[in-house]
Amino acid sequence: MKNQQFQKLLENYRSIVNKTVLDELKNRKPKSLYDPLIYFFSSGGKRLRSILLLLCANSVNKELSSEPINQAIAIELLHNFTLIHDDIMDNSEKRHNKLTLHKKYDISTAVLAGDALLALAYEFLSRDLKQNSEKIFQEFTNALTVVCEGQALDKEFETRNKVSIDEYFNMISRKTGALIKSTCRIGALTQTSNELVVNKLGEFGELIGIAFQIQDDLFDVIGDEKTFGKKKGSDLVEGKKTYLLLKALQKARGKDLIKIKKLIKSKGIKPDKIKEYINIYYDLGIIDLAKKEIENFRQRADLILDELKSQIDSENLKLFLSLVINRTY
Amino acid sequence: MKNQQFQKLLENYRSIVNKTVLDELKNRKPKSLYDPLIYFFSSGGKRLRSILLLLCANSVNKELSSEPINQAIAIELLHNFTLIHDDIMDNSEKRHNKLTLHKKYDISTAVLAGDALLALAYEFLSRDLKQNSEKIFQEFTNALTVVCEGQALDKEFETRNKVSIDEYFNMISRKTGALIKSTCRIGALTQTSNELVVNKLGEFGELIGIAFQIQDDLFDVIGDEKTFGKKKGSDLVEGKKTYLLLKALQKARGKDLIKIKKLIKSKGIKPDKIKEYINIYYDLGIIDLAKKEIENFRQRADLILDELKSQIDSENLKLFLSLVINRTY
Repeated sequence: MKNQQFQKLLENYRSIVNKTVLDELKNRKPKSLYDPLIYFFSSGGKRLRSILLLLCANSVNKELSSEPINQAIAIELLHNFTLIHDDIMDNSEKRHNKLTLHKKYDISTAVLAGDALLALAYEFLSRDLKQNSEKIFQEFTNALTVVCEGQALDKEFETRNKVSIDEYFNMISRKTGALIKSTCRIGALTQTSNELVVNKLGEFGELIGIAFQIQDDLFDVIGDEKTFGKKKGSDLVEGKKTYLLLKALQKARGKDLIKIKKLIKSKGIKPDKIKEYINIYYDLGIIDLAKKEIENFRQRADLILDELKSQIDSENLKLFLSLVINRTY
Repeated sequence: MKNQQFQKLLENYRSIVNKTVLDELKNRKPKSLYDPLIYFFSSGGKRLRSILLLLCANSVNKELSSEPINQAIAIELLHNFTLIHDDIMDNSEKRHNKLTLHKKYDISTAVLAGDALLALAYEFLSRDLKQNSEKIFQEFTNALTVVCEGQALDKEFETRNKVSIDEYFNMISRKTGALIKSTCRIGALTQTSNELVVNKLGEFGELIGIAFQIQDDLFDVIGDEKTFGKKKGSDLVEGKKTYLLLKALQKARGKDLIKIKKLIKSKGIKPDKIKEYINIYYDLGIIDLAKKEIENFRQRADLILDELKSQIDSENLKLFLSLVINRTY
């Protein structure tokens, strides 16, 4: 029952975000700039970051005069900006089972559309800001910087043969963690200046972000292609330095180690080898290890909510946590 | 004498901007993200926008407690962000006689470097802001949006056969005018909330921006290759819808008209035809027309300074105007 009500709340938030953004994009000119963005934004996405920002604001202040919907949209647009440009850099074909923006149009269109989406993110950020506006601007901009740095590290890793697990965690905490951290901090900052609450919710968000990324790495191997929206094993084909691959490199011995090293050296494998490598992951216990790691981050995030028990109403954040981590396995 | 002192002031501003930005970039990691930006920012640029912002602030308030150097840098970085991404979209080889960023490195590096530079622009914008911070953020973001829209129009024009002079002016007032308008408005806003002064200085900036762009179109045909930093006639080779080309299309008759239409239809000419087309421009009086148009915008900008005589100290802005418009012909 509680869960159903919560799902309804999320659905409501999601449709407000989608409608507001699409209405805004449809009203703008030139069409050559905004139509590609309408295509991209209509192509799917769970809007988890905007939902999380609203939940954080609500957890801090149950009696909101109005929800920080514009700031939630700003975060969502910043996230989508990074997706558009990342897809160019990774030369990705599809996202949510639809053509990526630069494949549907061309690189120039996608570069410029991404830029305009970031501009729109800042526009939303500055609407109806009631308190802590300078802090919120700084938080948002800091997230943007750190996400770029994380993406640069991710690109560096592609051409490097050696990447440690620590470097991997540093990269994903920048590429994925920082934005979700700022999502939670901004949600809190719209309602309070209490630093403890803001910092703790930020930590909560960062942990979720890291868990998200490991989950993403894991789903590439065990996920359902339809719900995940991309081909199983594509990280293996591209030779991406995922949590799974780096852990496998640590654990493998003998023949397995030779195969893992070969994949790294050749910067990926042919699609007909995917099954073989997934089996190596299972044999080495990497799949279980990843699940445990995700569960560990989930628990740490949960613990933070407990620590904040007297300052916030954590019920919905707890529901969010159980919903987004441990999704389908 | 006055002129010499003024040149010294500009040189001083320019070196502060360059040093502050390069120091900032050199302190950052990862190098794979920031080294390309150091290359780009060291490759040249007159820093006119940052200088203009400082001059506007000074014209409003002679007794500055401190100069809004961070906001001046923010505008300069926003401008450079647009250059990096525009060079990708236009597939330009060189800028300031050096390889463009995506040619020196690759497209992915240039996309991400541009993004990070925009992030840094917002970081500088938020430093030491003393008044009107929300207005300044909105002004800055609005400029970013409008510049993207102008670039989209410019790209549209490449594939369209018909573009009117009015459409051209709309495009350049967005692509080039908006940022210089915001430069002047932000300079003023750091010192005053007087709307008349802010608006008038904004108009002044927009007029300069439009004059700049027509001058740019003109220099492609009559400019010195070395000081201009690109090959003479490259707009003709690319078939760009410049002020000169659109005016020539209006004025030409007979054989000339056929040739102009041919250039437009073929989306450019071979380099060995450049001289022929430049001669057509001279014969049709297009060169003189462009000079008159620029002079007209310069005069209108000058008039605004006269209108503001009792509110600001316009001396340095007048010197700036005569320095940047009517530069070498």
